[in-house]
Amino acid sequence: MADFLTSQSEDFSKWYTEIVQKADLADYSPVRGCMVIKPYGYTLWERIRDELDRRFKDTGHVNAYFPLFIPESFLHKEAQHVKGFSPELAVVTIGGGSELEEPLVVRPTSETIIGHMYAKWIQSYRDLPLLINQWANVVRWEMRTRLFLRTTEFLWQEGHTAHATQKEAEEETLRMLDVYTDFAVNEAAIPVIPGRKSESEKFAGAVASYTIEAMMKDGKALQSGTSHFLGQNFAKAFDIKFLDENNELQFAWTTSWGVSTRMVGAVVMAHGDDQGLVLPPRLAPIQVAIVPIWRKEEERAEVMKATDILYQQLKDTVRVKVDDREGFSPGWKFNDWEMRGVPLRIELGPRDIANQKVMLARRDIPGREGKTLVSMMGLSQTVTTMLDTIQQAIYQKALDFRESHTYDVSTYGEFKEAVQTGFARVWWAGDSEDEAQIKDEAKATVRCLPMDQPGGTGTCFYTGKKATEVAIFGKAY
Amino acid sequence: MADFLTSQSEDFSKWYTEIVQKADLADYSPVRGCMVIKPYGYTLWERIRDELDRRFKDTGHVNAYFPLFIPESFLHKEAQHVKGFSPELAVVTIGGGSELEEPLVVRPTSETIIGHMYAKWIQSYRDLPLLINQWANVVRWEMRTRLFLRTTEFLWQEGHTAHATQKEAEEETLRMLDVYTDFAVNEAAIPVIPGRKSESEKFAGAVASYTIEAMMKDGKALQSGTSHFLGQNFAKAFDIKFLDENNELQFAWTTSWGVSTRMVGAVVMAHGDDQGLVLPPRLAPIQVAIVPIWRKEEERAEVMKATDILYQQLKDTVRVKVDDREGFSPGWKFNDWEMRGVPLRIELGPRDIANQKVMLARRDIPGREGKTLVSMMGLSQTVTTMLDTIQQAIYQKALDFRESHTYDVSTYGEFKEAVQTGFARVWWAGDSEDEAQIKDEAKATVRCLPMDQPGGTGTCFYTGKKATEVAIFGKAY
Repeated sequence: MADFLTSQSEDFSKWYTEIVQKADLADYSPVRGCMVIKPYGYTLWERIRDELDRRFKDTGHVNAYFPLFIPESFLHKEAQHVKGFSPELAVVTIGGGSELEEPLVVRPTSETIIGHMYAKWIQSYRDLPLLINQWANVVRWEMRTRLFLRTTEFLWQEGHTAHATQKEAEEETLRMLDVYTDFAVNEAAIPVIPGRKSESEKFAGAVASYTIEAMMKDGKALQSGTSHFLGQNFAKAFDIKFLDENNELQFAWTTSWGVSTRMVGAVVMAHGDDQGLVLPPRLAPIQVAIVPIWRKEEERAEVMKATDILYQQLKDTVRVKVDDREGFSPGWKFNDWEMRGVPLRIELGPRDIANQKVMLARRDIPGREGKTLVSMMGLSQTVTTMLDTIQQAIYQKALDFRESHTYDVSTYGEFKEAVQTGFARVWWAGDSEDEAQIKDEAKATVRCLPMDQPGGTGTCFYTGKKATEVAIFGKAY
Repeated sequence: MADFLTSQSEDFSKWYTEIVQKADLADYSPVRGCMVIKPYGYTLWERIRDELDRRFKDTGHVNAYFPLFIPESFLHKEAQHVKGFSPELAVVTIGGGSELEEPLVVRPTSETIIGHMYAKWIQSYRDLPLLINQWANVVRWEMRTRLFLRTTEFLWQEGHTAHATQKEAEEETLRMLDVYTDFAVNEAAIPVIPGRKSESEKFAGAVASYTIEAMMKDGKALQSGTSHFLGQNFAKAFDIKFLDENNELQFAWTTSWGVSTRMVGAVVMAHGDDQGLVLPPRLAPIQVAIVPIWRKEEERAEVMKATDILYQQLKDTVRVKVDDREGFSPGWKFNDWEMRGVPLRIELGPRDIANQKVMLARRDIPGREGKTLVSMMGLSQTVTTMLDTIQQAIYQKALDFRESHTYDVSTYGEFKEAVQTGFARVWWAGDSEDEAQIKDEAKATVRCLPMDQPGGTGTCFYTGKKATEVAIFGKAY
C-alpha cells in the first residue's frame, strides 16, 4: 500500500479524491463546484473523446456546434424538461453592461436550442434522419460536487437525432446504447450493464431512458452513459415537422444520448487500487514508462543510449515515455508510475543491457508476479501483445468483481444486506412509490432493467406481485 | 457566376454572408450574436483544430481545461485587462435559483483564472516552463456581429505559458507566431504577414502583441491569430512566483496566444469566388467528389459499379465522397460541389469507363481549362499529386493578389487611395494619437509592424519624422 494514499478499504471516497489530485488528473478551482482538468486527466479525456467520436462517425453521425446560451423561454416549452432542469440552472442576466430583456440560461443540455434549429432545417422526409453530435461544456448548479463525478460545469458529448418514424428513433436509441457498451467494454475495460431506466429515473422529457451501469470497487453503481428515446415530445414542443412521402405533415421522432467527463471517474473507480490508478492500455495517456537504472555515474551514458534505442523502437507503436528525471531514485520512479496507472513499466540497467534483455513490470499485477524478463529483440511486438493481455486482464478482473458482488435475492432482508456491498438482482413489479420507499429505507435505487432478461416470470421481492422483469438495484453515485 | 449568389464585385459583404449559409457552414441562432456551426463548417473547424493541435504538441505543449466561469473580482486584478474586457462581458448572477454573492463572468479569455491556478502549481524553477493550451468556447458581448468573424460566443484555442526568464517567454511568444504562420501558409494556403501590433492595438494587459495579418479578396485585413508577451503583468497580479536556482523568489514571465473560429471566415474570404467556396485541399472536409453520370437507366448499374471501384481505390488516401443523390442532374451536382468548394471533382460516365479514363475538374480553375482526362490506372497517385498542386496554386493566387494590392506609398494622399483597395506599406514613426487621427480620416489602422523589415530608415508618410520601421496599414474586419 502506498503510504501517501488512504487505502480503499479505509475510506474509498477519500481514496478517490486523493488519487484524482495526486495523479494530476484534476484540481479544485476557485469557482464553486467547478474543477480544473489537468493535462494528464485531459489527455485521458481526449482518448475517451477520440474513441467515442470514431464510433459516432462510423455510425453515420456528424459533429456540429450550437450556442452555449439558451433563451429562458425555450426551457419552458417542454413541461417535464423545465421541471427537471429548473432547479439547477445558471442564468446570465447582464450582457455588455446592460440588463438583458430575456435572461439567458447556460445550457444544462441542448434539446431545446437544437430542437429550435431542427424545426428550421427539417422540411421533408428527405432531410431525415438528421444525425448530429456536439462536443461541449454544460452547466448544472449542483449542491454537492465531486471531481469528475458531479461538477457544476462538465464536458460531454450530446447526440441529437431526428427520424421519420418511431421505429427508426427507437433503433437509434438502442444503437447508441450499444455504441456506449462497446466503448465501455473494449476501451475502458469496464463491464457495464445496459438497461432501461425506471419511470422515476428517466431523463426529464423522455419517453424512455436507457443507461449503461458500471460497478465501482466499493460496490456502488455509476451511471456511465445514457440514451433517450424522446418520442414526439420535443418535436411537438419545438414544431419539428416534415412532409412525408405521401405529402402529409408529420412530427419527427427524436433521440438524445450523452457521455461525459464522469467517464474519467468511472475508469478511476472501476480499476484503481491502493497503489493508485490502474489505466486500461487502450485509454492510458502513457502506455509504457521506461525507467533507466544505473548505480555508478560511468554506467549512465551506456544505459541512456540503450534506453534511447528502446524508445525509438517503441515510439511509433505505443505511447511511451522515458523517465530521465534527475534527482529521483528508480524506486521512487516505479512508485510514481504505478500511482499514475501506467500499464507497463520497462526497467533497464547495465546487467540487462549485457544480456540484451529488459524487465517488464505490469501495473495490474503488483510485485514480482507481474515482472517478466524479455529479450530486446522484437520488443515492440512483445509490448503490444502484453498491452492487449493487460487490457483483457483488467476487464476480466472488473467483471469478476462485479459478478462476485451481484446477489440474486428474493427477500427484502437479503436485499438490504446485498446493497451494502454490491448489486441486488431481483424480480421487480414495483412502481415509483415503492422505489421511493426502498430508496428511503435502503438507500438503493433501480439502476436499470437490464436489456438481457432471463425470460419467464418471478415474484417481486418487495411487492410480492408477479413480475415479468428482473431489475438491478444498487447504491448510486 | 452562380445566379443564386451575389457576386463579390457587387457586394463582397453580402457575398460572404450568403455563401456561409448556402454552403452550410453556419446558420443564425435565436440567441443574439451567437451562431450555429453546421456540420460542414464544423468539420472544417475540426481540420483546423487538428492541424494546430498537432503543431502545439510537437512544440511541447499539453492540453488542459479550466472553468468557463471567472469570479468577477479576478478581472479587476490586472488594471489594463479589466479596462479592455469590461464592456463586453456576459455575467451570471443567478445559480440554482438564488442570487450569487459574487457574480461570475463567462470567460472572455482565461489569463486570470489560469493565472490563479499557475500561482498554485508553480513553486520552483523545476516547474517551469509550464506549457498549456486549452480548446474552449469564450464569450464577448459584441454589438455588431458577423458569422465566424465576430460572434458573441466563439470557439478557440488559448495557449498560456509561464517561464523562468524574460528571454524564454519572448522566444515562446515568437515561436507560436511562427507556428501560426506555418499553419496559415501550409494548411490554410493563406499568405499571412507576421508582425507586431502597435501600442494602441495591443491585447489588454500585454507588454507586446504579435499577429498574423491576412488580406481578404476585398483588400481588407483580417487578424487571423495573435501571440502575446505578457511580461510579469499577470504574474504580479496573480502572484505567480517561483524559487530560482539560487533559491531566490522571482515572478514568472507569461505568454498567451490564440486562434479562433474566425479562421474559417479567413479561409472563405481569402479564396472564395463568385461560384462559392474554394477550400484548400489540406483543410477541405471533402477533398474529392465523385459524380457518376448516365443518360439511360441501363447504364446506371455499370457506372455505379465503376464509381464504387474508384471510391475503394481512393478512400484510404483522400477524403472522398460519392454523390449518388437521386433526382438531381450531373450539372446541378457540379454546381453544388463547386459552391461547397470541394477542390477536385471526378466525373465518370459510360464512355469514360469504356476508355478506362475519368475526368478530373479542378475547383480553383473554372471551366474547361481546369479539366483533365486521366487514366483510371494509378488514380490514387494522380489525385494526391493534383491535390498538392491545387494547394500550391491556391496559395500562389492569394499571394499574387496580396502583392498586387499592397502599395508602397509615401504621401497621405496616396495612402488614402491605397487603403481603398488593399494594404499601404509605409515608413512609420507616428504615435497612438496619429493612429487615431488616421483611423478617423481614412478608416485604416496599423495592421502590424512586420517582422520582416527592410532595415535602414525612411521618412514617415504622416508625421514626416525619421522612421526606423515599416508598417502595414489597411482597413480591418
